[in-house]
Amino acid sequence: MSRYSIGIDLGGTNLRAAAIDENGNLLKKISGSTPVTEGPEAEIADMVHAARLLRDEFGRDGLAGIGAGVPGNIDMSAGVVVRWGNVPSFTGYPTRDELSKQLNTPVILENDANAAAIGEHWMGAGRGMDDFILLTLGTGIGGGIIHDGNIVRGHIGMAGELGHITVVPNGNPCGCGNRGCVEKHAAAPAIAAMAQLLRLGDNLSAQDVEILAEKGDERALTIWGSMGEHLGIALAILINIFNARMYLIGGGVSGAWPYFAPAMFAEIERRSMTYRLTKASTHIERATLGGEAGLYGAARLPLLGNAI
Amino acid sequence: MSRYSIGIDLGGTNLRAAAIDENGNLLKKISGSTPVTEGPEAEIADMVHAARLLRDEFGRDGLAGIGAGVPGNIDMSAGVVVRWGNVPSFTGYPTRDELSKQLNTPVILENDANAAAIGEHWMGAGRGMDDFILLTLGTGIGGGIIHDGNIVRGHIGMAGELGHITVVPNGNPCGCGNRGCVEKHAAAPAIAAMAQLLRLGDNLSAQDVEILAEKGDERALTIWGSMGEHLGIALAILINIFNARMYLIGGGVSGAWPYFAPAMFAEIERRSMTYRLTKASTHIERATLGGEAGLYGAARLPLLGNAI
Repeated sequence: MSRYSIGIDLGGTNLRAAAIDENGNLLKKISGSTPVTEGPEAEIADMVHAARLLRDEFGRDGLAGIGAGVPGNIDMSAGVVVRWGNVPSFTGYPTRDELSKQLNTPVILENDANAAAIGEHWMGAGRGMDDFILLTLGTGIGGGIIHDGNIVRGHIGMAGELGHITVVPNGNPCGCGNRGCVEKHAAAPAIAAMAQLLRLGDNLSAQDVEILAEKGDERALTIWGSMGEHLGIALAILINIFNARMYLIGGGVSGAWPYFAPAMFAEIERRSMTYRLTKASTHIERATLGGEAGLYGAARLPLLGNAI
Repeated sequence: MSRYSIGIDLGGTNLRAAAIDENGNLLKKISGSTPVTEGPEAEIADMVHAARLLRDEFGRDGLAGIGAGVPGNIDMSAGVVVRWGNVPSFTGYPTRDELSKQLNTPVILENDANAAAIGEHWMGAGRGMDDFILLTLGTGIGGGIIHDGNIVRGHIGMAGELGHITVVPNGNPCGCGNRGCVEKHAAAPAIAAMAQLLRLGDNLSAQDVEILAEKGDERALTIWGSMGEHLGIALAILINIFNARMYLIGGGVSGAWPYFAPAMFAEIERRSMTYRLTKASTHIERATLGGEAGLYGAARLPLLGNAI
């Protein structure tokens, strides 16, 4: 059989793992059971368990390695999480080496937003694009920058913190210390907060507000309009900086595209001369791999070796 | 003698040219006499004249080629200015090929802000730094991004428009169509405009306001504080995106560093978690080549071949 690898996506709650062959066929996907909040030892046991199940099924011979995407900043050379906001117990823990030792297989650790960009580059909307930027809209906004075919990592693995681009100098406060980060005006909790401010209903989620917009609710549409404007400011900034061919919007919140995209494009058009001059060659689109982008990207890493 | 090349810096008013050897020694510097507003034919005649004077003095044998930095966006493969805001007559004119034909020497055309970054990388504050960003503060704010040792150019040569990063969503209007571009709050005309708003004096230049700050004038210090805050927002955005090791501030306005730097650093510290976590390894400094960065960078290009 052809070569394959195992991708692991360690989310905010628990893990998913998949065996994916070198042609990008997803062979099997499974979920873990241990909440990440139980700390690195328990989580690594869960990752090892999931990887062994897949390896037992698809064989040791064809396995190129294991890639793991985690929602923190990674020191790639050390294979260590430098900072993972919500789960500090992972910081400094030798995640890569421990996994590699227990599984006796090469392991590559990567930031989850970067993994998603690598996934979209491999099998999604970014195929064949050597320069693109992925924004993943969920609880926060993750960013992955691909330049000349490689992830931009920064000198300690903290590049691509695109959710923390300032779009309103004195806007909503952010846990990072800043005010007006784009994720505080355009990610799921910001949608929910605006719904509350407009008394749209009790404890509505971003998805609830999307459903209301679908039904034509004026206030829900206003909320998505505001979200689109703020996202548009961040995108105009990125376009002015990178002049890349492609910008992809992924993550759960991107499903509301029909309701926020018009305001987003209007704002980009107004704020970026570069966009106006390159509209024919600048693609701003939805990502296509959905929640599986990170799994594809994580699995891609061992197949690439050190190429990305 | 050693190899040398000729660098030309085509500014907003007229040109300067220099012969610089492969070790970075400036052999001779001369100025042109034709205003760029007279259009490409007249300007090219002036450039050819300057280059011939230097070539006659230092010889044809050692000449690696000619590099020319111009304040517009460049299509590098065509050697043509794609957009030069103030001097539209250059747009689409075959500047590189015309120069090359008349001089019978290889010519490389480059954006002036990129040339300044290449100059600082070669002989200035960016020596040995493979990832840094240069902001050149003058009439506008030019940007040059060096990543993995190469200039980030974007798909049609418009990357690095860092002066047009939005720092105040509804701030001062800009000729690019946006509002609140950092250059409308932190470049020389913004300083002059603030001086006028504060009735600091008639027709004061940014340099006048710098001299007043030096004398301890409270309102002048307030102006530089405002400028530093806005520049700090843009730098925090860049740090969150790139996590580079170095950010350089050059251009005429950077001389007021003692008056704007404290507010700039305070703003960066507040707005960038990445900066707070990497303060020891993130260098935010003044560029060191002053007005000659662009000449050095332009001269560097033929010596590098296609390496940058």
